[in-house]
Formats: sequence, structure tokens, C-alpha cells
Amino acid sequence: MTDTVDTAPSEPRRRRGGARANPNAGHGGTIPQLPKRKLQRKFPPTNLLSADELESIHLASLKVLAEIGMDFLHEDARAILKKAGALIDGERVRFDPALIEEALSHAPETFTLHSRNPANNLEIGGNNIAFGTVGSPPNCHDMEGGRRTGTRADFQNFLKLGQHFNAISFNGGYPVEPVDLHASTRHLDALYDMCTLTDKPIKAYMLGQERSSDALEIARLARGISHEQFEREASLATIVNTNSPLKLDWNMLNGILNLSSKGQAVCITPFTLAGAMAPVTVAGALVEQNAEALAGLAFCQLVKKGAPVIYGGFTSNVDMKSGAPAFGTPEYMKAVLVGGQLARRYKLPYRTSNTCAANMVDAQAAYESVFSLWALTMGGGNYIMHGAGWLEGGLVASYEKFILDIDLIQMVSEFLQPIEINEDALGVEAIREVGPGGHFFGAQHTLGRYTNAFYQPIISDWRNNQQWVGAGSPQAWEHANRVYKQALKEYVQPEMDAGAHEALKDFVERRKREGGAPTDF
Amino acid sequence: MTDTVDTAPSEPRRRRGGARANPNAGHGGTIPQLPKRKLQRKFPPTNLLSADELESIHLASLKVLAEIGMDFLHEDARAILKKAGALIDGERVRFDPALIEEALSHAPETFTLHSRNPANNLEIGGNNIAFGTVGSPPNCHDMEGGRRTGTRADFQNFLKLGQHFNAISFNGGYPVEPVDLHASTRHLDALYDMCTLTDKPIKAYMLGQERSSDALEIARLARGISHEQFEREASLATIVNTNSPLKLDWNMLNGILNLSSKGQAVCITPFTLAGAMAPVTVAGALVEQNAEALAGLAFCQLVKKGAPVIYGGFTSNVDMKSGAPAFGTPEYMKAVLVGGQLARRYKLPYRTSNTCAANMVDAQAAYESVFSLWALTMGGGNYIMHGAGWLEGGLVASYEKFILDIDLIQMVSEFLQPIEINEDALGVEAIREVGPGGHFFGAQHTLGRYTNAFYQPIISDWRNNQQWVGAGSPQAWEHANRVYKQALKEYVQPEMDAGAHEALKDFVERRKREGGAPTDF
Repeated sequence: MTDTVDTAPSEPRRRRGGARANPNAGHGGTIPQLPKRKLQRKFPPTNLLSADELESIHLASLKVLAEIGMDFLHEDARAILKKAGALIDGERVRFDPALIEEALSHAPETFTLHSRNPANNLEIGGNNIAFGTVGSPPNCHDMEGGRRTGTRADFQNFLKLGQHFNAISFNGGYPVEPVDLHASTRHLDALYDMCTLTDKPIKAYMLGQERSSDALEIARLARGISHEQFEREASLATIVNTNSPLKLDWNMLNGILNLSSKGQAVCITPFTLAGAMAPVTVAGALVEQNAEALAGLAFCQLVKKGAPVIYGGFTSNVDMKSGAPAFGTPEYMKAVLVGGQLARRYKLPYRTSNTCAANMVDAQAAYESVFSLWALTMGGGNYIMHGAGWLEGGLVASYEKFILDIDLIQMVSEFLQPIEINEDALGVEAIREVGPGGHFFGAQHTLGRYTNAFYQPIISDWRNNQQWVGAGSPQAWEHANRVYKQALKEYVQPEMDAGAHEALKDFVERRKREGGAPTDF
Repeated sequence: MTDTVDTAPSEPRRRRGGARANPNAGHGGTIPQLPKRKLQRKFPPTNLLSADELESIHLASLKVLAEIGMDFLHEDARAILKKAGALIDGERVRFDPALIEEALSHAPETFTLHSRNPANNLEIGGNNIAFGTVGSPPNCHDMEGGRRTGTRADFQNFLKLGQHFNAISFNGGYPVEPVDLHASTRHLDALYDMCTLTDKPIKAYMLGQERSSDALEIARLARGISHEQFEREASLATIVNTNSPLKLDWNMLNGILNLSSKGQAVCITPFTLAGAMAPVTVAGALVEQNAEALAGLAFCQLVKKGAPVIYGGFTSNVDMKSGAPAFGTPEYMKAVLVGGQLARRYKLPYRTSNTCAANMVDAQAAYESVFSLWALTMGGGNYIMHGAGWLEGGLVASYEKFILDIDLIQMVSEFLQPIEINEDALGVEAIREVGPGGHFFGAQHTLGRYTNAFYQPIISDWRNNQQWVGAGSPQAWEHANRVYKQALKEYVQPEMDAGAHEALKDFVERRKREGGAPTDF
């Protein structure tokens, strides 16, 4: 609790009210970057299952909710559910399929997630795709410092990386837990940092009433808007993980009560590891995921019709040898793709993740991540958690993995750009000019387009073997190590409205003086 | 030329005629492997382009062939083309669109590529996917031996790896060039090794009349079949690379004349690097690829109507800084996907590749390869070249990359298995049994399915951090190094019909005594 909100790194550059922040602030520098883009998938998503097969998962989920039910560990929540017609039996709640379907019919298909910089507002849902930073690891890692518990300094560094790179569209939570901040006021310092070091959409955790209320107020103050405007415009997101199987605990339900009632974004993500918290089959794990998601999402709509929600999928499998979670596996890919089909069936935005289980930024980390990106891109993911930096199944935020992921996301971003098809792009005249046996290096068509024709990667090393060996045979993660440091050097703190900043700072200071939130949760 | 065909490693185990070779010979051992599978994509392929956009590429290609034309550097080929109605102007050949379309209408949509072991016959085309070994690198690499010119010993090792792993369905050419074999007789020893150390479909190079004829005879003798049966059953494949832009050289055309006339499989693959041998735009490079492929494929059909052919795509881009080829890039992905759309438009099997440009088996090698696998899997690739072992843009066959790729291909193979959807798989009863707050580790549903529920990877390291550090913090390629050696230990040479082997050996020995092929090509 010795940190104050006035620490230099989180003091935003002041500017006078009125003028809008420069949307490109902090995005210059020497690291090649793609421009900020509204990413969209223009081709149809992949449907792994037939319509009949998908319906059988849907119907099985409804059966689970009607016959087995789900435990809701919050009295107010159960009261709302009872009023809506659900069957209450102690903590157990059973749902008639019609109740679920009616409630879901009010959920918006897309919504805008607002940021304090309107240039960073996000359309969530439809064929939009947005990548966030890693969220929630207790540890961080880089080459020099090794694996260690997260601190506020690391926390701020990851926020800065997320701000610096255009590939990142939102804060995916605490990119690493700042464990050196006291738990009672950690959320205040952490959200202050998030709102001042970045101007991208924010995300908070629902751990108790005080933290939920504080997060709502911080999100409002950072935007400098009225309560009325705040309740009309989603400006804060949270992830509600069910306690799989089939439970929603008090904190999570309380979070929904707080956020949905105020029109903020709630993503319901069951944590359904096949073979552990869910059936060992991909289909069975998806039935459970879908049942829990539907129950949570329907509850959000019962709290407030039209509240913005996101269908979350996180189904993966465990290692058969150890029971440890595995990620980026073939089973994960299937679950991600079918999760997208389910979300589309309900006309809901879809959250999924860029995951891996690797212990370091080696080939495994890369292939597990690209398998994840493959599934979520083709499967119609909208709100992509853990876009950059996730390692060790989420136990570690890795600086080098963050940069690797930025490169991967940029490649996905380029892949998603439609192929230019017009007479000049088709190039028949260029082919005529060069003719059989020639080459295109010097052709006018090439010279006019060369510099921006192809994606220029951040860390891929395309030098020939002799040059590469001469440079010390660097691995990809060694390039990433260099780049993350360079990015932190080039980071520019985004401007912030002086009035909004003052109000935010005052609030955080007052709440810290009051002691923050109880820590006996 | 000091090697004899009787070197121990390539002497197949004899068996009496009549009984068929055990299709699982050599596939036991301690490395977890998926069973041999007829891999199929059961979901629709991804169409990046609209039908109109695709048509504009098709039409631009036809315009190139009609107005610019292509150089055919073989008199007999031009005579055939002239007879068919093409316009001949020196070496230049121009095609009326109707001529192309008529010729292509005779090409089979799918065909069987036969092997000397019928259990390894492949259906090429449709929604089938088959992965081959790396083909044609001059160098090889492993951790201990470093980067070096390929030898027959390495050549044989890679053949054995391709035989050992069920993920590999065919020999993709010389997995590394056995440079210690004299060029005049190299093809004889190399194809002898391929036919005796493996019993999977073979591929040969079309470098001169003697090598083409020898390859045809070796393919026939290895199967022990008559000339008539051989001409009815494709038993040999070759890749014809055009000399992009818009040239087909004597050797390649001579290869087509030899193989297509005898009903063997010819894959026409333009080598269209955008910005170098093709226009700098993805669309333009695809127009050129398509023009060259169509001209070559049509020529195959003019040589023999109904000859089995494969539409080959290899379009990628160059590094903007150096002009060096890049692979597994976003541009590569787009080209691979549209190549599949084009092949489907012409109802032809589609060849594409698992590529990367990395210098070592690090994160870059993995992400470039998985991006390639993503595109070729979703794009409907059928005959996948360089499935395992390709590094440095094809300059190196890597032992460790081979194993990495086996794991990647197996993950794709698992991904392609349809999700089991039935009452038991949907798991409602298991969910009921476990109930809210329980876990599935001990559930009957889990115990009954656990051992085969999930893919068990070869090299992914899913140990927790403490265990992993305790084991020396191994990277993925260190696991791969161990596995390739183990696989070579566990390799079992496939049985071969004694009569076929005798005939094959006699032929190779006679041709070597005669001096093989001239080396002044």
C-alpha cells in the first residue's frame, strides 16, 4: 500500500479538455507495425457440425438445465430466477427450455464496448475480431529475469505493451497479477494504471461488492461521462467463469447483478476441461459448456433485458498422463469451432482464447498458439482473450511470448485482409511486360507496390543460413526479447482529459484511504 | 558409384510370393502413433474468394495463355500442341480458351496412386488429404551433426522415418539429395532404396530421358506387374515445376511425355514467388500460377486423355528486404486457399505444401508450418508435399523438424476426425452422475473412454514448470531429436515380394553397369 497513484509511470500526459486524444499516440517507433484496424472475417466461418448435430448439443444442454439444473449461490439471483419462472430447490435452479430461449432473445447480437478514447471503441460480435492481452497469470517471465511472481512494475510493463501494439484492441484483465500491491486496494491501483497507461477498453474482476462497485465507478470516471450515459454505453467488461460443473458462486453472480443491471458487458465462460470438470468427450464437454453458458447468459438478461453479453468458450482437454490442462490441442480446436457455431445459433458475440501449455517460447508454444488462432479465426471468435503473452496454460505472462503473439496476430490480421481483385492487381499487363523467362523485380507493377505488398514480420528471421549463423543463430524468442524492450522504450503514454484524470485520481485516493475492499473473501 | 544395391540397410526382408505385406510392419514401437488412416476433410473447404472473384482469376489466366502464351522448349510437345489447335510461334505457344477447357475436361477428378503395398494405395483428390515427406533439399541437419550436404546414409534415414510414421502417406521425392552418389547412377540407387526401404507410393524426378525411363521401369518392377497393368494404374508420380514466368523446359516436358503417355501421375506446380517470378500482388501471382498450371495440365491431357494429373500451387512471396523466398506467410495462406478454390473449379486434385523459412526448429519454424497446415487443410489440399522435414525454405531436410511435423500432422489428423455425436458421447447421464460441484475423473463415462479420448502428442511437453525445469528445461526440438533416433531404432524394413525384388535388383544393377544416365544435362 506504499504506492501512490502519482507514481511517474502511471501519470498520463495532461491535455486540455475538448480535443480528442491522438488515436495513433504511442504507435510510431522502429518496430514495424500494421495500422490500427477494425478486423473482420469476410469469408464464411467453418461449421464442423451439421445443423442436426449442433441441435443435438443444444437440446442436450437444455435437458441438463431442465432435469439436473445448476447451483446459483446467491439469494438475490435465485429470487430473480424464481420470479422468472425457474424451479428453485435450495440452491439448485432448474430451467424450462422456453425460459432460456425467451431470456436469450433479448441479448444483443452485437454491441459497442466503449473506451475512454473513442478511436478504440470496439464492435463486439458479428464478423468482428478483436484481440486482448493475456489476463490473470500469477507469474511473469522474461529471458533475463526468469520466472517470478508478478509485480506492479511487470503489470505496468504489460499494460504498456498492450497499449503500444495496434494488434491489441483491449485490456484482457490484469496481464499479470501485481502481487506486491495489497489485496484490499490492488484493484484500485491496478484499474487506475489500466485507465491511465492505456486508452483501450478495460476489464475488471468481480471479487466482492466493493471491487465491483469500484470498477464501475472507475470505468465511468475514466471516460468522464454521466451515470446515465454510462448505463447506455458498455464501458467495462468482465468474465464470469462458472464453477464447472454447474455452479455459479456468489462473487460471480454478484458481478452479473452489478454489471448487467448497469448495461455493462458480461462474458459467461464455463471452465469445462474435458475429463476433469466436464465429460471426457468433446461433445459432452460442449453440452456442459453450453448448459452453463446459457444459464448464465439467460440470468444476465433476467437482470436487465438487452444487457450486452458474450458467449464464452474455454473447453479444452487434460493431459491423459497427469490430469494437467492441455491447450491448443485438436480437441481444443474442435471445441472452439463448435463454440462458434453455438454462439451463432444464439446470435451472440463469441469469446475464445489464444492458448498454449508450453513452458517456454519454443516450437510448442508457437504451434499450440497457431492451432488456437486457426480455430478461433475460422470459428468466428469475436472477443479474443489472452491474445498476447499467455504461457504455461495461463500460469505465466511471458514478455517474449507477448511479442511472438503480436507477430502471430498481425499475420492473422493480414490473412483477414481481402485479396485485392481488380484489373491492376490481376497483373495481366505486368505479366505481358515481363514475358516468359523474365523476372518481376524491376517491373513497374512491382516497383509501385513493393514496399507494402507483403506483411513484414516482427520476429521472423528470413536471413540465409550464413547470415543467420553469423548473427549468432538467434532463435525466435531471442528476437522477441529484443523487441519487447524496444517497445517499452518506444511506448508513449496516451493523453487523457485532465478533468477525467483528476476525478479518477481523487476517487482512487479516497477509496484507498477508506481501505479498499475486505480481504477475507 | 562404389555403393552396391546389396548394402545391408536397403536389403528388404524376403518373403515368399502370394501373401501380402503386413500393412502395419514397422509401425509398432514405443513412440505413440495414430493408426494408419484414410484422412478426409468432412467439413466444407474455405472459399476466400467469391465466385465472381474466382472467375476473374480464371479469365485473366486464359487471357494470359491466349495473348501472351507460354514457351514450350520441346519440339515434340509443340507438335502435339499444334495438332490440337494451339498457335505456335517459334517456342511460344498460345492457347484458345476452348482448347484449354476441352483438354481439362478429360482429367480425372480423383485417381488412385498405387504402391507396391496395396494397403498404402492412395486416393488422390476429392476431400482426401495425404501427407508426403520433404522432397529435394540439398542439405540435411540434426542437432549433433549440424548442417551438411546430404548423403545416401541420410537419404536412407529419412526414407526410414517416412516409412515408420503412419502420418506419412507417400514419398515426396528424395527427402535429401544423396550427393555422395554419382549423378549418373544416383537415380537408380535412390529409387532402389525408396522401393525397398519403404512400401509407400514413390515419386521420381524427370531429368532426362534415361532417368524418366528408368523411373517408370523401377516403379513397375517394384510392384511386380505387367506393362499393361502399369499403364492402367498410376504407380509413379512426378512434380513438373514450370520455369516461371511462362516457360516449360525440355526435361519437364519430356517427363510429361513419358509419364502421361503411360498413365502415370503428373503434378504441374508453377514456381510463382510473388515479386520475383510472378507479379507482386497475390491475385497476379495466382493468375500466373493458374495460367502455367492450366497450360501444363492441358498438355498432359493432350498427351493422353484421362491421364492422372494434380493441380499444383506453390505461390508465396519474397522477403521485401532481401528478395529471399518467404513461406508460411499470410500471403502464402491466401494463395494456398485460392489455389484450392481453383483446383475445385477445374475438378482436379490439388497439391500444396507444408512450408517454412526458418533456420532452425524454433517458434518460427512451428508457426510458419502451422499457418501452412491451416491453409492447406481448410483449403482442400489433397497431395501435400514437404509434409515432414522441410526447413530453410527447402534448402535443408531437418531430422528434428521431421518429428515436429509428424506431431503437427497427427494433430491435423485428429482435428479432421469427426466429433462423435450420440447419446453416450453427449454425456447427459455422466453430467447427471457427477452433478454440480463434482468432478469427472472417476466417473464411469470417463474411465470407459479415458485412454483414447485425447490425442497424445509426441513432443509436446505438458509437465508443470517444476518438473520441466527439473528435467533440464528441454525445448520441443530436443524432444524431437530423441524421437527421431528412437524411430530409426524401431524402424522395420517392409517385406517385399522376392520375385519383384530380384527383378528390381537385376534392373538396377544392369543399368548401373551401363553407366546410368548422361550427366551433361
